[in-house]
Amino acid sequence: MPFRFTLRYWQGKARVGRFETPHGAVETPLFMPVGTQATVKGLSNRELVEIGSQIVLANTYHLLLRPGPERIARFGGLHGFTGYTGPWLTDSGGFQVMSLGHRRVISEEGVAFSSHLNGDRILLTPERSIAVQEQLGADVIMAFDECPPYPAERDYLERSFERTLRWLERSLAAKTRADQALFGITQGGVEPDLRRTSTLETIRFDLPGYAIGGLAVGEPKEKMVTVVDLSTDLLPEDRPRYLMGVGHPEDLVAGVALGVDMFDCVYPTRTGRFGYALVDEGRLNLGAARHKDDPEPIDPACDCYACQNHSRAYLTHLVRAGEMLGLRLLSLHNVRYLHRLMERAREAIAAGDYGAFARDFARRRWSEGPPAWFVEAMERAGMW
Amino acid sequence: MPFRFTLRYWQGKARVGRFETPHGAVETPLFMPVGTQATVKGLSNRELVEIGSQIVLANTYHLLLRPGPERIARFGGLHGFTGYTGPWLTDSGGFQVMSLGHRRVISEEGVAFSSHLNGDRILLTPERSIAVQEQLGADVIMAFDECPPYPAERDYLERSFERTLRWLERSLAAKTRADQALFGITQGGVEPDLRRTSTLETIRFDLPGYAIGGLAVGEPKEKMVTVVDLSTDLLPEDRPRYLMGVGHPEDLVAGVALGVDMFDCVYPTRTGRFGYALVDEGRLNLGAARHKDDPEPIDPACDCYACQNHSRAYLTHLVRAGEMLGLRLLSLHNVRYLHRLMERAREAIAAGDYGAFARDFARRRWSEGPPAWFVEAMERAGMW
Repeated sequence: MPFRFTLRYWQGKARVGRFETPHGAVETPLFMPVGTQATVKGLSNRELVEIGSQIVLANTYHLLLRPGPERIARFGGLHGFTGYTGPWLTDSGGFQVMSLGHRRVISEEGVAFSSHLNGDRILLTPERSIAVQEQLGADVIMAFDECPPYPAERDYLERSFERTLRWLERSLAAKTRADQALFGITQGGVEPDLRRTSTLETIRFDLPGYAIGGLAVGEPKEKMVTVVDLSTDLLPEDRPRYLMGVGHPEDLVAGVALGVDMFDCVYPTRTGRFGYALVDEGRLNLGAARHKDDPEPIDPACDCYACQNHSRAYLTHLVRAGEMLGLRLLSLHNVRYLHRLMERAREAIAAGDYGAFARDFARRRWSEGPPAWFVEAMERAGMW
Repeated sequence: MPFRFTLRYWQGKARVGRFETPHGAVETPLFMPVGTQATVKGLSNRELVEIGSQIVLANTYHLLLRPGPERIARFGGLHGFTGYTGPWLTDSGGFQVMSLGHRRVISEEGVAFSSHLNGDRILLTPERSIAVQEQLGADVIMAFDECPPYPAERDYLERSFERTLRWLERSLAAKTRADQALFGITQGGVEPDLRRTSTLETIRFDLPGYAIGGLAVGEPKEKMVTVVDLSTDLLPEDRPRYLMGVGHPEDLVAGVALGVDMFDCVYPTRTGRFGYALVDEGRLNLGAARHKDDPEPIDPACDCYACQNHSRAYLTHLVRAGEMLGLRLLSLHNVRYLHRLMERAREAIAAGDYGAFARDFARRRWSEGPPAWFVEAMERAGMW
């Protein structure tokens, strides 16, 4: 079994696990930085290893268009092409294709779309998505799914998750490599009964892992909490659960409480490129004049290169001067921040202290008290 | 004496030396990467140390405008503000101010100009330049000079170098810190007699080092060779000689033969950001389609992180996709290339093999034979 998932500690629904892949084992819960174009924006492979990245996500849609999966396959897949030899995960391309809006046409066969680079007309189907993901060679690959927007009509959500189930069946049938784990994706928007049916039908495929898809697309956080909670109630305990596209620190803390094992988001690198640094209290805007003379590091408790070597004043200078190094150091810190947050979460669960950890996090994060959705998540988890 | 220059080997006019500064000793000949805004674009301090940077240049003009010298002084100068604790050199601001063109007015007092950031009217004088450079706290600071464009009228060149001498005298009078070495700058364009007079008058100040200014501004290379050769004939042997703004590999190889010890240029980082990688054969355009499938590193003989870890194919993908990591890795390689070139030059001089080294360099660099200016430089050096 190249993909073994072992639970090591749990507290309520929250759990610490270990997921073995052909390119190494990872400790869950974890955050996956996003390497959209086979590079986590601004960071080198050495830095990813140093800051504790365990598994890196790449986007099938972008790599299909450029540099093309045949090219990456000739170099031994993402591992050989990029030189990042730890585990990789690729998405199916479905989410990106959906977000092209009017340029895409969805049918039972798949999704036809125009390349944003050169306008070429391309048809992405479950079979093509899996073939491309096999060429990319990630350790974890995702079933081709349809990700509806929020809000969406109930009728559309129903047809959509049913099609996603048929596409999952086709994805599985198209899969040929034994050294890649295919995760299924549940849909159904924020309609509890649809989500329940989608989840129950998806787990019938007995897959090595499951993703909760179609969230973090603009719905109220309360609805996300409800759907995540009901999903982790239904998903098998002995398989990793991946909450797609979720990456704000508070969402991770709540998601872990509800039994999620994996997260991904462009948020830490994107907000870093906008000049923001993640801290327990929220975000520091290092483009702001008030940090021009601030001799403190971003976070004295952080062990990243930026915090160990540079003041907020210097980082603010770099951001205001538009220097690449500033964006690079903030991206580094922000990804490290989320990795450290998950390390702290793992330690808290192992110690049976996750409730205290989450309350301490909430106290720092929201000086006027946590929002209702966060309290509800923790109450549902029985840890408030 | 905090600034001791010791010659260790020489071959003809070429020499290997050691220059001691309050923040460490450097081996010459050397190339200084340019940290215009107190950061070498795209590179971290750790990387600068790893690739063998010995002394980093910062621009007084840019730092005067942003973040301001008072702020940098409060953090302990450039060393404390940036965290790069090796030697620094600052230019005087003269060259940048001259290049503002119609927005600046030169008088005996100094140069009045408008900030390119907010239009503020600023007067830069020898006294102000030195005061700012004392706040920035570099180990080597430069006299405030006037750098004429090429071509310029002989009459203007004459008045200009004479004013530069008066500004040197004022720069010296304004200097208060003993832990900074002030280098004088010779001018006189490419008029041999003016350059000779400028040099002879400048060395009368008995300074710890001398720069050859006003070259690499568009003049034919033959003229640069003539001026460098006559300058190093006149400059004292026991002081470092710095050829300002020169940074193409072939210029460094010729300059070293003629007795230059220090060079600086934005070329390696700028050409890196444009997608070019420096190799002995010239430049590789990694934005070009022909490297899309090239499994070789930029240079198999290079020990930089990019060459040790990545193929041209991956770098080409990063460049074509506009990824920050590509520009970062090419800048890293290019600066390392020039440092390694100077390491090879030092070894060749120490072994008495500089002629063979330069001929070998020329054979790789120009498949159809070296240009006349390069041969002339080597012939003048007695090593062709």
